[in-house]
Amino acid sequence: MRLPDIDDLKDAAERIAGVAVRTPLIRHDALDAVAGGRVFVKAEVLQRTGSFKFRGAYNRISRLSAEERTRGVVAYSSGNHAQGVAVAAKLCGATALIVMPADAPALKIENTRSLGAEVVLYDRATESREAIAEAICKERGAVLVPPFEDPYIIAGQGTLGLEVIEDLRRLEASADALYCPTSGGGLMAGVALAFSSLSPATDLFAVEPEGFDDYGRSLKAGERLSNPRSSGSLLDALLTQQPGALTFEINRHRLAGARAVSDAAALRAVAFAFRHLKIVVEPGGAAALAAVLEAPGALQGKTAVVVASGGNVDVSVFTQALAT
Amino acid sequence: MRLPDIDDLKDAAERIAGVAVRTPLIRHDALDAVAGGRVFVKAEVLQRTGSFKFRGAYNRISRLSAEERTRGVVAYSSGNHAQGVAVAAKLCGATALIVMPADAPALKIENTRSLGAEVVLYDRATESREAIAEAICKERGAVLVPPFEDPYIIAGQGTLGLEVIEDLRRLEASADALYCPTSGGGLMAGVALAFSSLSPATDLFAVEPEGFDDYGRSLKAGERLSNPRSSGSLLDALLTQQPGALTFEINRHRLAGARAVSDAAALRAVAFAFRHLKIVVEPGGAAALAAVLEAPGALQGKTAVVVASGGNVDVSVFTQALAT
Repeated sequence: MRLPDIDDLKDAAERIAGVAVRTPLIRHDALDAVAGGRVFVKAEVLQRTGSFKFRGAYNRISRLSAEERTRGVVAYSSGNHAQGVAVAAKLCGATALIVMPADAPALKIENTRSLGAEVVLYDRATESREAIAEAICKERGAVLVPPFEDPYIIAGQGTLGLEVIEDLRRLEASADALYCPTSGGGLMAGVALAFSSLSPATDLFAVEPEGFDDYGRSLKAGERLSNPRSSGSLLDALLTQQPGALTFEINRHRLAGARAVSDAAALRAVAFAFRHLKIVVEPGGAAALAAVLEAPGALQGKTAVVVASGGNVDVSVFTQALAT
Repeated sequence: MRLPDIDDLKDAAERIAGVAVRTPLIRHDALDAVAGGRVFVKAEVLQRTGSFKFRGAYNRISRLSAEERTRGVVAYSSGNHAQGVAVAAKLCGATALIVMPADAPALKIENTRSLGAEVVLYDRATESREAIAEAICKERGAVLVPPFEDPYIIAGQGTLGLEVIEDLRRLEASADALYCPTSGGGLMAGVALAFSSLSPATDLFAVEPEGFDDYGRSLKAGERLSNPRSSGSLLDALLTQQPGALTFEINRHRLAGARAVSDAAALRAVAFAFRHLKIVVEPGGAAALAAVLEAPGALQGKTAVVVASGGNVDVSVFTQALAT
């Protein structure tokens, strides 16, 4: 598969303009005080469907032919990609079927259905979502929209990086470091393409859940390694089994490293965002913020960007976070 | 006291540029679906200190002389003005003392203290905050920063209106109606100055808590009327006893009307903002959103703006809202 480049990102940015939200960079004195530096939060929770996933989904689906749109699209997702694909498909006049784990947050399943998509549930422990999705694609002649292993998906997610760089320039700032929640690595890869081209001095860090640090271990090993488990973290958006081949090929040459955060740290970050930033972030979406909050003073004299990648959180989990 | 005009607003906009946050206009399909039209939410919860109050406070305090700053500033507030004044004073090198009701949300009292202000508590039912503040001002030679009865405060809040008009123009849109949470009427008056000058076709509506609809009754009566009670609403940010003389003089000629919303409706709006908009809004800050959500279909074919004016809400109240 072809590796996307900076021109693909610029092309994607034109395509999503006026359809996706140009999400703001926000900041707060309390966050700077903890970090010891200047921290900007890319509030991507304000994106259409509540996460960055809409960017890539729209960039991919809007390129389907009229005939492909008639046969519809299929995707597998724990929730955020599902919602992104559902809305992008609707806007492009295509039907969408999403294969979702039965233990995905109720809010994500419900939202996906209410956005007009058909939902097929599977058991994360015993079934293969890829196999189920492929079988349905064959049966219907539908197009699979993968969550990250696709140049258009990666380029779409990368538009987030372009916006961050532009907004920082407008503030006459540049980032010493950027922290990004990472699962399959599509968002991280897209952002890495943007930064390696336009802001190469920025150190990029993938942030993962503890126990699901496949990207961190893979970067060290120089090859793609898997997670021992496939469920059992509150950061439900970040539980992909291993880095994508395409995303790893991009990220391995561009990342400075990886960080892993605990469930408890992610919940504290969710509560911090509620109290100070006034945005609703899901545990997985708060992973990068958690990484910065858990290392007080580590950004002394530096400017950093934290991506808050999604906000689709169940009431029960959010309430649990506020109680911490 | 001199009435501010559009030039005061433009001057205030220059003064707060780069210090205050230029908060985004956000939208959501689910909100449009309920309203039946096109609704934009001014996400002012993302403002410094979590509410619009910082705009006016900074516009006022940054104009104090070096000598006035040495003697410090005093304000009375149920919480949002307190935080706005505390931060604005800090940025201007002045000390701040805030007179706050003992029953204000704990988060607001705590935040005000942690922002470096001295806090004096009073009993909302039996004591006069104005009297307490004036006594302290006399004693210290400090400058009183009123919550709304001041041309600089009103002009500062009005910058929010300028931003809305600018952002709508960029989207090649204009608003048929605007809904704004209203208490003393400073924000509403500032916004009314902006719109009556630059978007006169927009119908402006003040939104208040049920039982504290002094502005609505005053507009009908053509004179300033008081509320029978001074406490007992979850919309703690909107419990001023009566319209300000200055704000009423501005608003009475410019508003199309007023709406009143119940505690329950405000809590539903807080939950809607959590679920769909991904922003944290306090009940008073969600009053305008509630007014729109409680009138399904009423904006058929129209474009409207809803101001989400503040997000400083205690965990207990927020949790209560999410449980509705």
